[in-house]
Amino acid sequence: MTFRPNGIVTLTTDFGIDDAYVAIMKGVLLSIAHHAMIVDYTHGIAPGNVVEAAYLLRSGYRYFPNGTVHVVVVDPGVGSNRRAIALQTPEATFVGPDNGVFSLIVEDARRDWNGQLHMIELTEPRFWLPTISATFHGRDVFAPTAAHILNGTSFGALGQPVTALTPANRTTPQLLDSGVLMGRIVHIDRFGNCITNITQEHLFEHQIGPTLVLEIIDQQLNGLFRTYADGPVGIPMCLIGSSGHLEIAVCNGHAAQYLGVDIGDKLRVRAAEDTGPRHE
Amino acid sequence: MTFRPNGIVTLTTDFGIDDAYVAIMKGVLLSIAHHAMIVDYTHGIAPGNVVEAAYLLRSGYRYFPNGTVHVVVVDPGVGSNRRAIALQTPEATFVGPDNGVFSLIVEDARRDWNGQLHMIELTEPRFWLPTISATFHGRDVFAPTAAHILNGTSFGALGQPVTALTPANRTTPQLLDSGVLMGRIVHIDRFGNCITNITQEHLFEHQIGPTLVLEIIDQQLNGLFRTYADGPVGIPMCLIGSSGHLEIAVCNGHAAQYLGVDIGDKLRVRAAEDTGPRHE
Amino acid sequence: MTFRPNGIVTLTTDFGIDDAYVAIMKGVLLSIAHHAMIVDYTHGIAPGNVVEAAYLLRSGYRYFPNGTVHVVVVDPGVGSNRRAIALQTPEATFVGPDNGVFSLIVEDARRDWNGQLHMIELTEPRFWLPTISATFHGRDVFAPTAAHILNGTSFGALGQPVTALTPANRTTPQLLDSGVLMGRIVHIDRFGNCITNITQEHLFEHQIGPTLVLEIIDQQLNGLFRTYADGPVGIPMCLIGSSGHLEIAVCNGHAAQYLGVDIGDKLRVRAAEDTGPRHE
Repeated sequence: MTFRPNGIVTLTTDFGIDDAYVAIMKGVLLSIAHHAMIVDYTHGIAPGNVVEAAYLLRSGYRYFPNGTVHVVVVDPGVGSNRRAIALQTPEATFVGPDNGVFSLIVEDARRDWNGQLHMIELTEPRFWLPTISATFHGRDVFAPTAAHILNGTSFGALGQPVTALTPANRTTPQLLDSGVLMGRIVHIDRFGNCITNITQEHLFEHQIGPTLVLEIIDQQLNGLFRTYADGPVGIPMCLIGSSGHLEIAVCNGHAAQYLGVDIGDKLRVRAAEDTGPRHE
Repeated sequence: MTFRPNGIVTLTTDFGIDDAYVAIMKGVLLSIAHHAMIVDYTHGIAPGNVVEAAYLLRSGYRYFPNGTVHVVVVDPGVGSNRRAIALQTPEATFVGPDNGVFSLIVEDARRDWNGQLHMIELTEPRFWLPTISATFHGRDVFAPTAAHILNGTSFGALGQPVTALTPANRTTPQLLDSGVLMGRIVHIDRFGNCITNITQEHLFEHQIGPTLVLEIIDQQLNGLFRTYADGPVGIPMCLIGSSGHLEIAVCNGHAAQYLGVDIGDKLRVRAAEDTGPRHE
Repeated sequence: MTFRPNGIVTLTTDFGIDDAYVAIMKGVLLSIAHHAMIVDYTHGIAPGNVVEAAYLLRSGYRYFPNGTVHVVVVDPGVGSNRRAIALQTPEATFVGPDNGVFSLIVEDARRDWNGQLHMIELTEPRFWLPTISATFHGRDVFAPTAAHILNGTSFGALGQPVTALTPANRTTPQLLDSGVLMGRIVHIDRFGNCITNITQEHLFEHQIGPTLVLEIIDQQLNGLFRTYADGPVGIPMCLIGSSGHLEIAVCNGHAAQYLGVDIGDKLRVRAAEDTGPRHE
């Protein structure tokens, strides 16, 4: 199986939708790939928040059909010397800045497509717009590159192979000596649910079961609930959200406001069995 | 005339657009129905507000060509035992939770397609994703169902016929003994216009003419204006909005802020002819 | 070269995206032009702000392929006697109200397509919806007109030629006697960058070079930087943004909040060489 473009390209940015930036990228895409089917993934990433973009992209890219191209423009270093890159597996292609935004994709790809993950630095200006601004590579570099991929340009022609990318901080939890997982909030959704960087797999790997204990700020939450409606009304509870990540929710409420927390804030999770004295 | 899908599917949700939830539904749709033309109807429904969703859907679905599939995911009861349903007339198909969100559609359909309104409970998991989460039926049930309808799956194959749906409260005004219509604000638009659940037909039916009197909070508004520009500047006025509903507007102003009202608030409308003493 | 529709239509409105207004326009477009490729340009124009719409449209329309139709519905005078118009060059067609929203397009077109800019008043109701509301010409007039253009209706059939449009105020800077350009902020983007109505061409024409001096409120900014990352951290700086307009930015900050400015506010730009006494 090799990657074959299916005509779909998704856009993930921190541009919001009140400016013309997103429309301009679409115009460039359609000028080169006339029949592109463009899907807005999200343009609501907090400005410059690479970790949130990495989480949101990973939470959904696998629901798109094989052959989809995903463009990510969360690019606080635009105009500096950060690299422009593209990644390809037999399943999907990703285009964007080398700033950690694809770190969770690489994690997936190394596990599932070992040996079939190709990474290049975009170094061939013939696939870009004729003039490259200092501030808008989404328009000048990433959108044209994606359009050429949709048109069937071979991946290798776009640039030079690279073997390692710039890692992102804070996209994965840390295991502390005490058997405690220290994670962070990576996204707060419209309903106030606080999604963490701790997945069901992390819990399983570290033998933390459904009777877990989560500590955040001055709150201690006990146990995993199956659904929002199963939890207590009006106070925070833990569940595994639809993306497979541990999240904190308040049934009929707004967990982030209740707890007074924000993206980036820390939390600690441990197995309930750990009832001996803890030294922190 | 029977329903024939035209390839268009609209999405109405309370997800907002800053999360990946909408994109994920689109990925699922495109994975099953590769050429779906997906239109964002709105994702700005107030979280869980079934009445607002019912109003907004009714205000626009008839502008879409025959054969359109409308998916609504305003689903505060997801994970509970509320039914998943679909409705079909020769004109359109609707897919979503059975919580009243389609109550105004059913009203239209009973009037216009009497005997040709089909309603089913979605009970056939072969048209869903393989795994059903407890929290995201938009992704797992409704999007795949809509995609199969686009692909031509026969409506009856999707589940079991039902004869009645769960009604929604507050979607229609009440007639009080005194000949007064008691309505509610069901939507406040970007310009601050307060749209009510009272339609031009309701006024006609109850013989309330263009010299009507509307009472809300401590304000009394007199008469219907034809357009925003026709009304007094800076104070509230009544008109029939573009959806055929009675609305309160302030020319060059924001009616909801002026009045200090919100979705769900009550108002009373009566004919001006009613000049006798009122006992309330 | 003559205009040939490519199937793409863009929508620029001040409707926001939480109402059904945009969806309804899309439904109308698709009902008449079944295969229209609809692109949301932006729906985030400040309500009624014709100057902002004119700027944002100009900043991006040229990135769309030849043959695109651009619909603009920023229409505070809907229901009054303002004209409905369409403009066509060999490159693109524009449809909307005659209130200045196309003034920058006309400027471009007169320069680049002299003699090939056609302007008409929309006067042929057979290309509109059967019923015309007093409040929503985006639905009733502009969307159907655009759809008929996509379908190949000849431009001249849509109405009567006009030779001049209503101008917009404030879309271009004024040259003061002292050699100072007085401009205004026309848009504030998501990152807080304040985009002005002064373009690189204006600076060149008035011999204001990269050592310019910009005065706004009580601040004086010196010199043009090439990119956000090149400027000082935390204080305002000037640069030419990706649309070719002079903008004020704060590296890693929000310039509009820093300065306490808003759309419409004035600023003054002059060459640094002007070091003699100034009389204002």
